[in-house]
Amino acid sequence: MNIMILGIDGYLGWPLALHLLNRGHKVSGLDSYVRRARVEKVNSNSLTPIASNPDREDIFYNQGGTDLDFHHLGEGDYYSLRRILIDNEPDVIVHLAEQPSAPWSMVDVYNTSITQQENIIGTLELLWAMYEVCPKAHLVKLGTMGEYGTPNCDIPEGEIPKDCLDPINHFISHDCPMSGLQFPRAAGSFYHLSKVHDTHNIIFACKNWGLSSTDIMQGVVFGVKTPEMTDDSMITRLDYNEYFGTVINRFCAQALISHPLTIYGDGGQTRGYLPIEDSMICITLAIENPPTRGEYRVFNQFEQIYSIVELAAIVQIAGDTHGLDVKIKHYENPRKEMESHYYNPYRQKLLDLGYEPTTDIEHVVTKFIGDILPYAGRVKKENLIPHTRWDSKHRDSKII
Amino acid sequence: MNIMILGIDGYLGWPLALHLLNRGHKVSGLDSYVRRARVEKVNSNSLTPIASNPDREDIFYNQGGTDLDFHHLGEGDYYSLRRILIDNEPDVIVHLAEQPSAPWSMVDVYNTSITQQENIIGTLELLWAMYEVCPKAHLVKLGTMGEYGTPNCDIPEGEIPKDCLDPINHFISHDCPMSGLQFPRAAGSFYHLSKVHDTHNIIFACKNWGLSSTDIMQGVVFGVKTPEMTDDSMITRLDYNEYFGTVINRFCAQALISHPLTIYGDGGQTRGYLPIEDSMICITLAIENPPTRGEYRVFNQFEQIYSIVELAAIVQIAGDTHGLDVKIKHYENPRKEMESHYYNPYRQKLLDLGYEPTTDIEHVVTKFIGDILPYAGRVKKENLIPHTRWDSKHRDSKII
Repeated sequence: MNIMILGIDGYLGWPLALHLLNRGHKVSGLDSYVRRARVEKVNSNSLTPIASNPDREDIFYNQGGTDLDFHHLGEGDYYSLRRILIDNEPDVIVHLAEQPSAPWSMVDVYNTSITQQENIIGTLELLWAMYEVCPKAHLVKLGTMGEYGTPNCDIPEGEIPKDCLDPINHFISHDCPMSGLQFPRAAGSFYHLSKVHDTHNIIFACKNWGLSSTDIMQGVVFGVKTPEMTDDSMITRLDYNEYFGTVINRFCAQALISHPLTIYGDGGQTRGYLPIEDSMICITLAIENPPTRGEYRVFNQFEQIYSIVELAAIVQIAGDTHGLDVKIKHYENPRKEMESHYYNPYRQKLLDLGYEPTTDIEHVVTKFIGDILPYAGRVKKENLIPHTRWDSKHRDSKII
Repeated sequence: MNIMILGIDGYLGWPLALHLLNRGHKVSGLDSYVRRARVEKVNSNSLTPIASNPDREDIFYNQGGTDLDFHHLGEGDYYSLRRILIDNEPDVIVHLAEQPSAPWSMVDVYNTSITQQENIIGTLELLWAMYEVCPKAHLVKLGTMGEYGTPNCDIPEGEIPKDCLDPINHFISHDCPMSGLQFPRAAGSFYHLSKVHDTHNIIFACKNWGLSSTDIMQGVVFGVKTPEMTDDSMITRLDYNEYFGTVINRFCAQALISHPLTIYGDGGQTRGYLPIEDSMICITLAIENPPTRGEYRVFNQFEQIYSIVELAAIVQIAGDTHGLDVKIKHYENPRKEMESHYYNPYRQKLLDLGYEPTTDIEHVVTKFIGDILPYAGRVKKENLIPHTRWDSKHRDSKII
């Protein structure tokens, strides 16, 4: 298939490009490199020493990649996006080109506005361009499990089903009058809200214009190496700062330098997680099993659910295997979120397509720490303690 | 109370200012006048000859108004908005300052982007400013009944209730596990979607920051004169073009010049409607009965539901009273929408606060036609036939 990846220079975009090339697909991509700049701006770096822009381009073409363009995707650049789509005629567009950080979106009014503007308007322009020049292409869009929040009921995959969503108290099998409507979203940051807004806009574009989309509600990804990275220069970026680092990646980076793992609050927050290799497999399943014309479908994508304290314990054990002395500390929670709650999201659709979740997460985390051990000297301590608070009264969280 | 109206120069903003002044409130307002410019740009005008900007300012101050600022509300002007809120210390902020047209939002990628950018980012900046400088103020935000779309079940007021939402097939009294979550929104244009996005952002701001808001899901308003308009120079604008004119207003303008009423498709589309006086009364009820601190509440606001063919018949009869020969024609529907469907929205909360809906809509429409008869010569025919289509293949709809 002819696949275009928007955000190809990112944490997931780059390994996805390598994975899809390895499977014999034609791959092109777009990126603005804004992520590299923003991580520098918060005084951090990628834990892994990723290739420079020109080197990455060389690697991409050496691996058989076709076009790599570094355009700004978003406002004011609509006609170059449209031209690129006309020239490339993609069968599939994987849209990963968004501002991906919840804490970054909560810093101040500017970060909130930039996050929603870039993500919403960028996606709107993509939808219009697809409708105008490649309406048959399949849009694979990265959403987040965070769109749903933590409701007191089961979380279906996109639509409300016919039967009740709570197996504990209210199991009733009946034709729910709301079945077929989207399950209500209740996101917990301006970033997560931008993904909710995208979701609503994409649903409408599919319904109104007959576009096709797989909207992936992805859990939190961790890890850095995939089988296609046969050379260290091919490694993907790994963020570990409070803004762009997701929790297992942050914990493992902290473990490397004996910084205590920074659990926010009680640590009972439960979410879906998946290793980076599982993410590649799942996105590929979505690509290679496209929806029908005009279809909008949601895949919930994660290996399993874990609470933060469970994850910290796993990282501690995995660190011990490598001789690391991993301490765990609880910090004031900078976020406004429930620290213990019901959580039961479904993830049947990818299983139906053949996804076999990694089961031995301890092993995967142990291997991951081994992968990043050589880079321990690159960890900058500036952003390990959370500073950006959801009440915008920013200060470093204290140990509790 | 000290009330600030954002969008005070608009169709609803202006009569609301007069109404609130008449009730003894302190009223200030902001407007960018962009609506006046946009209506000119689509080669149309207000059917009513509204006062020029300076004259309107004079009227406002003569009626006892306090501050009238004509600032651009939105991106890049955050600090002047913040400064105005600090200076005015409003108890209530009525936010009507949005791009309000569904067809205008569907014209092209620019109109879509501008609509969502102005509405979403404008509201986000307002929320941030409120949190930073007047967190105790009550935000009265104008949403639309169109956020809900036309689902095959009853439409509650904001939240999913405990019992089933379909009295016909599936009446079950049970604790719905989703109760308390927002009823799913399914809007039918990029404009309506912008209001859905606002809704989600406001819910989060209330939950996260403790702001208070009444989010009004308003039906389609019609009419032009309110009791406070004691002089013709005080009349509010009345749009009747395909973009900014809502259906009854368009029909009545068409009736004036014996242009056939432009029913889109079968005309079975059913929505909630209310006279402009009812809108003033309802918004005032929301203002004078504020929510508790940190509360987010939704009011569905309409007098009654009507189908388009019912409305056309009412306008025909009302026109006849004035000796007008009103013809009705069906045109190709430029929108993508169901032309016959289940529709049963609730509107109990405003009734509980004392709202007594106008019951005699024939009488109200007859009076309305009388109000605009003197201005029949001002009708421009350019935009009476719908041209902007939801499939973006724009052309004038033909009679079917």
